[in-house]
Amino acid sequence: MLKVSAKDAIYIFEPEMSPAASVKPGEVFKVETSDCFCGQIKSEGTLCSEIDFDRINPATGPITIEEAEPGDTLAVEIIRMDLADHGVAVTVPGEGLLGDSVERPSTKIIPIRDGKCLFAGLSLPVKPMIGVIGVAPEEGAFPTGTPWSHGGNMDTKDIGPGATLYLPVRRPGALLAMGDCHAVMGDGEVCCSGCEVAATITLRTSLIKGSSRKWPILETSEGLSVIVSGENLDSALSEATSEAVDMLKAGLGLSWEDAYVLSSLAMDLRISQLVDPKKTVRGVIPIKVMSPSRLFGNLSYRGD
Amino acid sequence: MLKVSAKDAIYIFEPEMSPAASVKPGEVFKVETSDCFCGQIKSEGTLCSEIDFDRINPATGPITIEEAEPGDTLAVEIIRMDLADHGVAVTVPGEGLLGDSVERPSTKIIPIRDGKCLFAGLSLPVKPMIGVIGVAPEEGAFPTGTPWSHGGNMDTKDIGPGATLYLPVRRPGALLAMGDCHAVMGDGEVCCSGCEVAATITLRTSLIKGSSRKWPILETSEGLSVIVSGENLDSALSEATSEAVDMLKAGLGLSWEDAYVLSSLAMDLRISQLVDPKKTVRGVIPIKVMSPSRLFGNLSYRGD
Repeated sequence: MLKVSAKDAIYIFEPEMSPAASVKPGEVFKVETSDCFCGQIKSEGTLCSEIDFDRINPATGPITIEEAEPGDTLAVEIIRMDLADHGVAVTVPGEGLLGDSVERPSTKIIPIRDGKCLFAGLSLPVKPMIGVIGVAPEEGAFPTGTPWSHGGNMDTKDIGPGATLYLPVRRPGALLAMGDCHAVMGDGEVCCSGCEVAATITLRTSLIKGSSRKWPILETSEGLSVIVSGENLDSALSEATSEAVDMLKAGLGLSWEDAYVLSSLAMDLRISQLVDPKKTVRGVIPIKVMSPSRLFGNLSYRGD
Repeated sequence: MLKVSAKDAIYIFEPEMSPAASVKPGEVFKVETSDCFCGQIKSEGTLCSEIDFDRINPATGPITIEEAEPGDTLAVEIIRMDLADHGVAVTVPGEGLLGDSVERPSTKIIPIRDGKCLFAGLSLPVKPMIGVIGVAPEEGAFPTGTPWSHGGNMDTKDIGPGATLYLPVRRPGALLAMGDCHAVMGDGEVCCSGCEVAATITLRTSLIKGSSRKWPILETSEGLSVIVSGENLDSALSEATSEAVDMLKAGLGLSWEDAYVLSSLAMDLRISQLVDPKKTVRGVIPIKVMSPSRLFGNLSYRGD
């Protein structure tokens, strides 16, 4: 099985990138990822001031998906995540929602044992997620720490094993890359850090031809989420609502007005992260209200 | 069993209010509530322009809780909600996150049958909730449509059967009132309306002496949520994070710094509503991370 090495990493998503590997649709493969600090933090004595910030948020790849063409949707099924035996969390003055109250940088090494993160005397159940995942944008250069419509640093805790992420293909071969895994994180990522961890991700991709949408969409057992980033929180929330209403209108054949009311009754607007250069939210439509085949039509590869 | 009539309703939460009824701590009682339109919408032909907006968001009460004194916490256990056989939803130009796209007011009557809301060809499972619930504030006059630290129009979908709401007692007798029930609503209430419904609520209150906190706190099987409203979304989110960190610090005996990191790892910041005069969010701490007895100490009335 192909395993893409964490040594092959990018720090910018841009239209032209040299592929590190190539896979066929339907092929199962592995991707090794460094933690968001590129492994620079070795102990709690490592302070943020010692870190080379040119090596933050590495994304392993890019990986060419054969046959992927602009206008397609790339379905990325996250099969499994194997985590390192410890993670890292930091606080930094000025960073996070309460950054003004942080007096000095601090680093916490968090052991991971038997599926639990051990922190502050508590055992938090591991819930692995991928913080950075995306494809080549149509234009522009997006640092891997920034989320936008190509994906990137969406820091959405539902992007984990069992979920399928639908990304809009903008460039030939899609050019998929990912990193910044967390062993556990709450919605908001309020102190600017989850439990940052190196991981090996097992994936399978599929192509839905000619069905590209504007923003990434995530399928979980719970719901179908449109993941939207904005310059500020209010603009992200309005755009997520607008996209969710359009999805309900298109997928269920509703009037815009009925889709708007339905979104108010049944869709949850949730916060993904508040601490990256853009803010990320998601509109979660229950899977019983709308399945992905309603939206994308052709999911024949998985029998829907 | 005492049943407080919906005819006894307030439209403003203020320090001095004439009680409509009185209950003892531990007593089970019922509260009848009108829908948020005070039952003025009889058919889909009723437009918002015909509604008397002086009769919006009635809250049944106020109800004196015997022995309640300023500084106590009032625990309100929501035992059961019996809903009318239909609800109402509206769209209004300029209202809600996509109000600029709403061309004309519209009214939807939503039948409720066998635990489902029937709308747009879908059957949405009923998830009853109380939109407006609060006590007398220490000072000021808060219209029932406005949420703040006394409670009020928090429009938080988790305030339903099985949940316990902890409200800060600010005035003798607490003076509890409630209304604006919804049969179903998504986080955000994006079009400005849930499935608005008349209901009869069955409740039991208890007093936790001398343990008052700043904002309402909700206990569900999932978590302990601090419910915070703000002039804008960003201020509400920062305040909710600050409160949650203080709760973790006090309840678990952590340093502020560890509590901040823990909130980033384990707390979800969620949106309650974005469409009232203030915005409401909640910081949800998993119940396995912190139980209410950690926070309030004395919950002897229920054996914790």
